[in-house]
Amino acid sequence: MAARPPRPLKTQKTKPVVRFRMRITAGETVAIGPGKIRLLEAIEETGSLTAAAKSIDMSYRRAWVLVNELNGSLKRPAVESAKGGEHGGGSQVTAVGRQLIEHYRTIEATAEVSCKAEIQALTRLLVEPAV
Amino acid sequence: MAARPPRPLKTQKTKPVVRFRMRITAGETVAIGPGKIRLLEAIEETGSLTAAAKSIDMSYRRAWVLVNELNGSLKRPAVESAKGGEHGGGSQVTAVGRQLIEHYRTIEATAEVSCKAEIQALTRLLVEPAV
Repeated sequence: MAARPPRPLKTQKTKPVVRFRMRITAGETVAIGPGKIRLLEAIEETGSLTAAAKSIDMSYRRAWVLVNELNGSLKRPAVESAKGGEHGGGSQVTAVGRQLIEHYRTIEATAEVSCKAEIQALTRLLVEPAV
Repeated sequence: MAARPPRPLKTQKTKPVVRFRMRITAGETVAIGPGKIRLLEAIEETGSLTAAAKSIDMSYRRAWVLVNELNGSLKRPAVESAKGGEHGGGSQVTAVGRQLIEHYRTIEATAEVSCKAEIQALTRLLVEPAV
């Protein structure tokens, strides 16, 4: 255990990718985070919780729990399910849900732009990608 | 499965907390992320990988792997271990390691400040905390 960790080769196979993720937690629960936003976007695209879950490789059960948590964290729901038909006749992202997606994606983009110089400084400490 | 999710009570126990997390990935590996930065800070405080791991409730093995990955992602190491003595005579955060911590924490703080208005708009969609 006393040995210094072995040094890997000092090249990377791929260019470093920077990802910002924002989470808003309330107590133990993540009220809003990347998983819920991605699911919302998928529901908006597909109009169905089943199809949305499938498209992002998430179980229907998990998607249902996330939508339930999300709606419970909001004053007004982000997703509404129609009654009747296959799995309740589809699910719709509400105006509130669309606001949520837009704010979230704007925040991520703004964070990246405003931190550009610092991110570059940090990235310069990293091993250069092997081209 | 067709039922609409039950609506929880529309109050939160605690005030929402916003957390930004940045990850820089290179291929499959997270080169830099919140876990590694927290570990670096703990090593700087304690001067020992064993004590650092313990202080943030991480296994020594996991801490060792993270330090190894981190050093391997950087042109020059963020952590250096002295030879001899208990677990190699302690570990030191290098000047590069300190730069890394500072850039990372500056980026988080800058992101929060620059996104303040959008975050407030988003937070207004959430259920008010019960006071």
